[in-house]
Amino acid sequence: MAATKIDVLGIGNAIVDVLSRSDDAFLKDHELAKGSMSLIDEAQAEALYTKMSAGIEISGGSAANTIAGVASFGAKGAFIGKVRDDQLGKIFAHDIRSIGVEFTTDAATSGPQTARCLVLVTPDGERTMNTFLGASQNLSVDDINEDQVASANVLYLEGYLWDPEQAKRAFLKATKYAHNAGRQVALTLSDAFCVDRYRDEFQNLLRKDVDILFANEAEIMSLFKASNFEDAVKLASEECKLAVLTRSEKGCVIIKGNECHEVPAVGIDEVVDTTGAGDLFAAGFLYGLSQDKPLPECGHLGALAANEIISHIGARPEMSLAELATSRNL
Amino acid sequence: MAATKIDVLGIGNAIVDVLSRSDDAFLKDHELAKGSMSLIDEAQAEALYTKMSAGIEISGGSAANTIAGVASFGAKGAFIGKVRDDQLGKIFAHDIRSIGVEFTTDAATSGPQTARCLVLVTPDGERTMNTFLGASQNLSVDDINEDQVASANVLYLEGYLWDPEQAKRAFLKATKYAHNAGRQVALTLSDAFCVDRYRDEFQNLLRKDVDILFANEAEIMSLFKASNFEDAVKLASEECKLAVLTRSEKGCVIIKGNECHEVPAVGIDEVVDTTGAGDLFAAGFLYGLSQDKPLPECGHLGALAANEIISHIGARPEMSLAELATSRNL
Repeated sequence: MAATKIDVLGIGNAIVDVLSRSDDAFLKDHELAKGSMSLIDEAQAEALYTKMSAGIEISGGSAANTIAGVASFGAKGAFIGKVRDDQLGKIFAHDIRSIGVEFTTDAATSGPQTARCLVLVTPDGERTMNTFLGASQNLSVDDINEDQVASANVLYLEGYLWDPEQAKRAFLKATKYAHNAGRQVALTLSDAFCVDRYRDEFQNLLRKDVDILFANEAEIMSLFKASNFEDAVKLASEECKLAVLTRSEKGCVIIKGNECHEVPAVGIDEVVDTTGAGDLFAAGFLYGLSQDKPLPECGHLGALAANEIISHIGARPEMSLAELATSRNL
Repeated sequence: MAATKIDVLGIGNAIVDVLSRSDDAFLKDHELAKGSMSLIDEAQAEALYTKMSAGIEISGGSAANTIAGVASFGAKGAFIGKVRDDQLGKIFAHDIRSIGVEFTTDAATSGPQTARCLVLVTPDGERTMNTFLGASQNLSVDDINEDQVASANVLYLEGYLWDPEQAKRAFLKATKYAHNAGRQVALTLSDAFCVDRYRDEFQNLLRKDVDILFANEAEIMSLFKASNFEDAVKLASEECKLAVLTRSEKGCVIIKGNECHEVPAVGIDEVVDTTGAGDLFAAGFLYGLSQDKPLPECGHLGALAANEIISHIGARPEMSLAELATSRNL
């Protein structure tokens, strides 16, 4: 096997978030399911944006957030995702590169604009996301470089990639390259509605291609159509090589065959914005794995990173996660 | 005199801020004068951006921030400024309109991109600004509508507008329209370096055209080439109809002929980002004037709004200033 140059290579939708404060009444008026991610087209995005309050633009994208987190911990991250050669695309590329992530996917020179996610943050810190996939849906197999995939210890994929048809094919191609090179493939289920859209395909993928699964309670229960978390845990232990199940303030459960570790969350005074909590949990966990740390410690690192991200607006770390981990003796 | 439809009409550079965390070493390496605003061209903006850490994009512009603040207090604000018909221009227009500000200036369909200001925020909360004026320098007399100016109780102008030659002419045209309609003209000096660039012109303007002057200590001392603040206050009392001089944590001094009021700042635990402090002070003060409040109370409202803005990242209020004022019985 060739030497590992990259600790974690993420593939995902390359998105700029537009975060704005909202309230439950606004969500209700616009029939938005609180806490979920809905796909919208450009016209819907324009219409919703017109009604939203003033926003803050900040780079996002689920796997991109995770890789930015991995880099912030001090590991080597790389990201594959499609932007357009527009202002938001330049912002996305700048931000992910500025933290040391390898990002070399060519920007589209025609077609839809860079993807954006209109994120409505309610006073309880919960986020409701409305994504216009834009240029990111044109990620294709041509954007996947076999050598790069082969040089990464872990390939990390977001479930959201299953929505754009072309991106799904790129996702599967990358999975093949990773396994050919003897690397591990990690998948995050992304969203319970996303799981609902592709349950059978995800179950199939899980059996064949996924070495590490990340999911929250709603997602894992949806995947296995389980009526309670305990049943979902049992099914995960049978179906997954390694499953990492997050439960918000209840911490996480890590399942590997007969091994099962429960790791508490890191307490916080005030949840400002949960955008990116799952993404950053995965960052900490994958960083821990890259350093060959025991599974419970990987969970602690995930909890620490999730805690940092929910303490402020936006889904990219505001401080060095490496320094944060050091300060907690992790 | 026709009825007043607008409380405060601002004219300024229409800018999107790119805020990123930095440190003193970075400022020194790039020969940036801490706390100041430097004009840079597109190539310099690209070069500096490449070196900056990941940012947050948020609508800015000095007078635009002030008008957003005026609207947040519940008064009627309007803004004139030039963006390009690009993504950042749409963000700027959305954000200022979303708070109820009248913004009808046509976006440029050719020429440079929407202006952006690269703001480096150091750990002490101080901001150092690097502005690429872009489309905003093409604001012209054609963008000034006499009826709109005549319908505004106060015309508010930022000193920064003196930099782009065309905008300066628009500024002077608007001043003429305002005075023809019997309205008041307010000016903020914007920046000590800006004052240094145009000292004689600003002094001349002050005598002829300005009814309300806003300046901080460094700016007023630079304007009158005074060696200390006391001398500057004396000169301001002679030269200005109404001068409002801000002194950061020392509060402000309001001078009107022989009247002189000192108003303390509103205390704060932690200064996160001083971007917009002066702009929001002016917002509170002008809102107070629009409600015919006594001058010291106008100063209190200014201090309150400045306090809100330095408690978080960005130069637009994160909460309703009307609610904040009510909660403080102002």
